Amino acid sequence: MTATPVYDQVCQTYTRLHRFGHLQSIAWWDQAANMPPRGNEARAAALAEMAALMHRLRTDPALADHIARAGEEPLTDVQRANLREIRRDWRNANALPESLVQARQLATSRCEHAWRTQRPANDWAGFAENLREVLKLARQEADLLAQQTGLSKYDALMDRFEPGMTAQKVDAVFGELRSWLPGLIERVRARQAGAPVTAPRGPYPVPAQRALCEQVMRLLGFDFDAGRLDVSTHPFSGGVPEDVRLTTRYREDEFLVSLMGTIHETGHGRYEQNLPREWLGQPMADARSMAVHESQSLSFEMQLGSHPGFVGLVAPLVRRHLGDQPAFTAENLARLVTRVKPGPIRVDADEVTYPAHVILRYEIERPLIEGEIEVDDIPALWNAKMMELLGIDTRGNFKDGPMQDVHWAESLFGYFPCYTLGAMYAAQWFSAMRRALPGLDERIAAGDLAPVFDWLRDQIWLQASRWTTDELAVRASGEPLNPAHFKAHLEARYLEGQA
Amino acid sequence: MTATPVYDQVCQTYTRLHRFGHLQSIAWWDQAANMPPRGNEARAAALAEMAALMHRLRTDPALADHIARAGEEPLTDVQRANLREIRRDWRNANALPESLVQARQLATSRCEHAWRTQRPANDWAGFAENLREVLKLARQEADLLAQQTGLSKYDALMDRFEPGMTAQKVDAVFGELRSWLPGLIERVRARQAGAPVTAPRGPYPVPAQRALCEQVMRLLGFDFDAGRLDVSTHPFSGGVPEDVRLTTRYREDEFLVSLMGTIHETGHGRYEQNLPREWLGQPMADARSMAVHESQSLSFEMQLGSHPGFVGLVAPLVRRHLGDQPAFTAENLARLVTRVKPGPIRVDADEVTYPAHVILRYEIERPLIEGEIEVDDIPALWNAKMMELLGIDTRGNFKDGPMQDVHWAESLFGYFPCYTLGAMYAAQWFSAMRRALPGLDERIAAGDLAPVFDWLRDQIWLQASRWTTDELAVRASGEPLNPAHFKAHLEARYLEGQA
Repeated sequence: MTATPVYDQVCQTYTRLHRFGHLQSIAWWDQAANMPPRGNEARAAALAEMAALMHRLRTDPALADHIARAGEEPLTDVQRANLREIRRDWRNANALPESLVQARQLATSRCEHAWRTQRPANDWAGFAENLREVLKLARQEADLLAQQTGLSKYDALMDRFEPGMTAQKVDAVFGELRSWLPGLIERVRARQAGAPVTAPRGPYPVPAQRALCEQVMRLLGFDFDAGRLDVSTHPFSGGVPEDVRLTTRYREDEFLVSLMGTIHETGHGRYEQNLPREWLGQPMADARSMAVHESQSLSFEMQLGSHPGFVGLVAPLVRRHLGDQPAFTAENLARLVTRVKPGPIRVDADEVTYPAHVILRYEIERPLIEGEIEVDDIPALWNAKMMELLGIDTRGNFKDGPMQDVHWAESLFGYFPCYTLGAMYAAQWFSAMRRALPGLDERIAAGDLAPVFDWLRDQIWLQASRWTTDELAVRASGEPLNPAHFKAHLEARYLEGQA
Repeated sequence: MTATPVYDQVCQTYTRLHRFGHLQSIAWWDQAANMPPRGNEARAAALAEMAALMHRLRTDPALADHIARAGEEPLTDVQRANLREIRRDWRNANALPESLVQARQLATSRCEHAWRTQRPANDWAGFAENLREVLKLARQEADLLAQQTGLSKYDALMDRFEPGMTAQKVDAVFGELRSWLPGLIERVRARQAGAPVTAPRGPYPVPAQRALCEQVMRLLGFDFDAGRLDVSTHPFSGGVPEDVRLTTRYREDEFLVSLMGTIHETGHGRYEQNLPREWLGQPMADARSMAVHESQSLSFEMQLGSHPGFVGLVAPLVRRHLGDQPAFTAENLARLVTRVKPGPIRVDADEVTYPAHVILRYEIERPLIEGEIEVDDIPALWNAKMMELLGIDTRGNFKDGPMQDVHWAESLFGYFPCYTLGAMYAAQWFSAMRRALPGLDERIAAGDLAPVFDWLRDQIWLQASRWTTDELAVRASGEPLNPAHFKAHLEARYLEGQA
């Protein structure tokens, strides 16, 4: 008998949940990467059965009782941190009545499924009808979560992805960003107009692209003994920390999409592969939050992947796998991956214009949830903000406008800010790294990436959910989220030609 | 409320088990086909957690009570058949105490894991030590199962794979086979000595072999919208009926192993793909037994795959994918796939010598389980029987002798007979098919395989576990297992040059 028998029992339940989650994750990955179409119905039934089982485990009254009593035991600081994360998980699972969970599942499935054909057909009216039902339920969910947490409605939804983040903080950060971003984009574009880029010429055979991606993943320290790279329509990082499953997609006429996408997913993957093994299976061992997760993928894709020193390492690999051509000099490749060009599509956006897409969505989804606007108001707001932020006219083009993302169809309100918060954290990490490691950029250019990985491993990966996001940021970089680093990074790289 | 509320409740439990089994099967397939080495520990823990959950569901006292009471409800014949299969499943899950199940799991894992290195090292003494522990526990298991079922010990173990089959029946069938097989092998070899074969010349690039295998699978009616072909060290048919996962392995210097292996697995796969959808999830919808399953893989690999008419269909595909060469005429390929040559290895054996390998194993594992011989007696018996049946001296060569199979290490005593019983059933099905479908061999040669698939679908696949194996055989072919068809088939094909 240990001194913490009740806490230990709670941990046992979470270990079971972790193991069932393993089978769930592998089945999800398989569904995206392998599953033939006629396997879908049986898979959905199997996954629903598993979700129901895990929900029952999480809503068992005995667990609630144990969690309450575990806090009275003589816990260590580490155990208290784990219990904090367990309480969060428990609250999210127990906040909603089963009927609402099922209604949401039904509404999002219908909306997402119809979206697949409505989007190519530019059918906003059809999409809006389904989205109204999703929004209605999301507002109910926000109400209930707000009551439980004492947060505002939108904050309560955002808290599912980014614990501790509030609309007040996002307003401050995005408001500031909004004030200088359009001007920065203009100055960068004027500067780049004088530095022409040589366009690469395809085709690029898929096996060669795959070999290139895998070699770059090795350069980035991905452990292929504990993970894989496969293909799916929508690239993602899945699997389990012990066996990370990344996916990408290849186009014969383009290679940067798969390469940069793979570098992005490798950032997610290394975070998962390096979560602390000694706590694995407990909520404290999970990645901290979605913004911190994005800070890792963007540390890899943007901070490192578009770093001229790193591009200098990748250029010979590109030439080795795809053949030599004038576009494949290190200088030209660096110009290619930092090219700034406003466009209507978020996932195609460059590092500088990307935040504009996120601000726009945040400024729409927040009032949507708070009940200040309705689904029918979206297109006009979208067009106005797109014009204001990026100077792009998207009137009537719903498919490349408010129908381009699947997030709202899936009721992931509160997720979008994580992308740009992640970009800001990534800049903050690299700023801290440069202070701690003089000559870092020269070492990167010389092929010595170990300092970057060591810093990220010690400061972020191995910390998992030991601390709140604010605590994590302070411990790693001396301060909580500070968007000044992101601004400084963009100005240095895009106006001053630095790393 | 239906008229069979208790029966319905039992069915619900089995539907849940089926859905959990889905995730288990996909995870097993993934483990063999995809999983990187460092994923193993977490996967094992996740699968053990799932096995424990399913064991708890099966050993819940309420289920026992429901199964007992369901029989008193006004069930249809179909429902009674399902309840019969449910009782079998229930009995197998409930017969053994948890402690024995765990001890077996431990002993087989240790034995199998050590075998991987002991086999290449020809280390019989090391293997025997672990096998003694596996055997000790298998005897305990046989004792308990025998008490529950009223069967003899070996029969009780065999019943797990081939319900209704007894050593008495196997003795009769294998005894008769044993009396004419060595003589037949000699006559066939003498006959083939006068018909030389042109050896094919490699290498055969793996992508070309894969394309060939996939095209032959299509020819055999495999539904790629409900299944896949991948690679694993030990080929198998896995996944779920709605999403069948076949595997094969490729060698650059050989193409017949992957091709014939794929044809074999396609037989398993089509059985699974065509199990009756309306009962799916209930034990009655499962494949009838392992011998019947092997009868499908061998109907494809041997009855059809080595049929000169079918080889005539495959020959142009071989030439298309692997290039033309003198060995790739239809006549020469037919001779290649029917070449008879005694060898020490079961999995490399041809259709005619294969039964000798099975008889040998049966004649050793049965007295092992009945306590008449011990592990230390195996090598001498193996050598004597190998000499007697195939004229091969394997003294001292343990790795290609009693250490070649993983079955005993995994405590699969009672499984081996299913291979040859399956070959016999396959011959019996084709004999019945030829009676029902005049001109069948000419239709096969003309590329019309539909009659074969239609017969198998109606008589075997869609029957699933609706009937006992004897009933199934009688309904399909007019009689229970009759080994005369196998003898007639071998004589016709190997002595008279017929299909």
